[in-house]
Amino acid sequence: MLKLYIGNKNYSSWSMRPWVLLKQAGIPFEEVMVRFDSFGGDSNFKQTVGTVNPAGRVPALVDGDLSVWDSLAIAEYVAEQHPEKQLWPQAAKARARARSVCAEMHAGFGALRSHCPMNIEASLTEAGAIVWRDQQGVRDDLQRITEMWTALLQEHRGPMLFGEFTVADAYFAPVCMRIKSYGLPVPGPIAEYTQRVRELPGVKAWIDGALAEKDFVAFDEPYRTSR
Amino acid sequence: MLKLYIGNKNYSSWSMRPWVLLKQAGIPFEEVMVRFDSFGGDSNFKQTVGTVNPAGRVPALVDGDLSVWDSLAIAEYVAEQHPEKQLWPQAAKARARARSVCAEMHAGFGALRSHCPMNIEASLTEAGAIVWRDQQGVRDDLQRITEMWTALLQEHRGPMLFGEFTVADAYFAPVCMRIKSYGLPVPGPIAEYTQRVRELPGVKAWIDGALAEKDFVAFDEPYRTSR
Repeated sequence: MLKLYIGNKNYSSWSMRPWVLLKQAGIPFEEVMVRFDSFGGDSNFKQTVGTVNPAGRVPALVDGDLSVWDSLAIAEYVAEQHPEKQLWPQAAKARARARSVCAEMHAGFGALRSHCPMNIEASLTEAGAIVWRDQQGVRDDLQRITEMWTALLQEHRGPMLFGEFTVADAYFAPVCMRIKSYGLPVPGPIAEYTQRVRELPGVKAWIDGALAEKDFVAFDEPYRTSR
Repeated sequence: MLKLYIGNKNYSSWSMRPWVLLKQAGIPFEEVMVRFDSFGGDSNFKQTVGTVNPAGRVPALVDGDLSVWDSLAIAEYVAEQHPEKQLWPQAAKARARARSVCAEMHAGFGALRSHCPMNIEASLTEAGAIVWRDQQGVRDDLQRITEMWTALLQEHRGPMLFGEFTVADAYFAPVCMRIKSYGLPVPGPIAEYTQRVRELPGVKAWIDGALAEKDFVAFDEPYRTSR
């Protein structure tokens, strides 16, 4: 069976993407949770993850003697292995567009990622209001996301970005979490899309796992000293 | 015909990847060069690129009424459109590994990218020696790259990372340029691989274009005040 190595569900936005993809698509897998302790070379995290990913990061997917790392490569691998799940849009142009927005997320939106790290169990609306006031980069990132999603939802008529659930929705699920945790202001139809994403069974299952965790990982907590 | 929007060949490592991929594979395309002036919203660069990529960045590939942006999404699109070119390895496991290392490059190696920005026409060995001495992150990045390439070259027996030329070689071509420009120390077999990459006709054509440029783009020049 596929094994997916992930970090803490509360914090690990990169782990969330392929986990939600597999779960929502109904593809069986075994989860291997490697709790964040530190990212030092001798940490349990690095030692454990290093056995399956030479880059030392989660997520990593293990299929027999094959390791696939990085969320985007995992998505491509799973989509190839399960064409019947239609994880990418079926039309070539829509598929190209879905890959464009996923790749844009993969390497971009640095301000949003650094100022609003994913923290599912926390309510950080006060910190979010200050970030929103002070960080032009965060406002720019969210404007771009709003324009992207608005265009896709109109073109494909929802409920998901490309009509039915695809890799793209899994890819932006952590952004949907951040918008809620930090209370970031978005137009009504965008807020409704983020709510639909949070209510997907695969996303709800991840959120439930995050809420059940008890760790407080200081380097992922710029705005709190404890839970 | 395909249109590929790119930035300055001397500096734009992200543009280099799909350009080299198309050129080396012999896929016809029209190049649209948008010189870096500034990345301000009212710059010619942003205004021009914004017409084909809402994210406002190069590279972008235009195929009729379709825009594909981000180098990784472009690679996937071209590979799908031209299966006969075998741009990804043909074996599923090798293909998954190739996508893993490309995705790792796409979102990683931040120290190497920021301290050693691509600058093909420059000889920056003095700056490179200081960077190498002072920047642990650059040494870590290059160690990871060396381990990755060594394993792939041994496993697939060269001359390229996965035997014959694939997306992965195009993806790491800018790293091969940086190793030379900054005189970064690498083991012999790695230096030989970078040399083979630089001698690929598709890469040589890009280098020739870079050398013919006359721009000096200050924000890409942390180590020089003029050419």
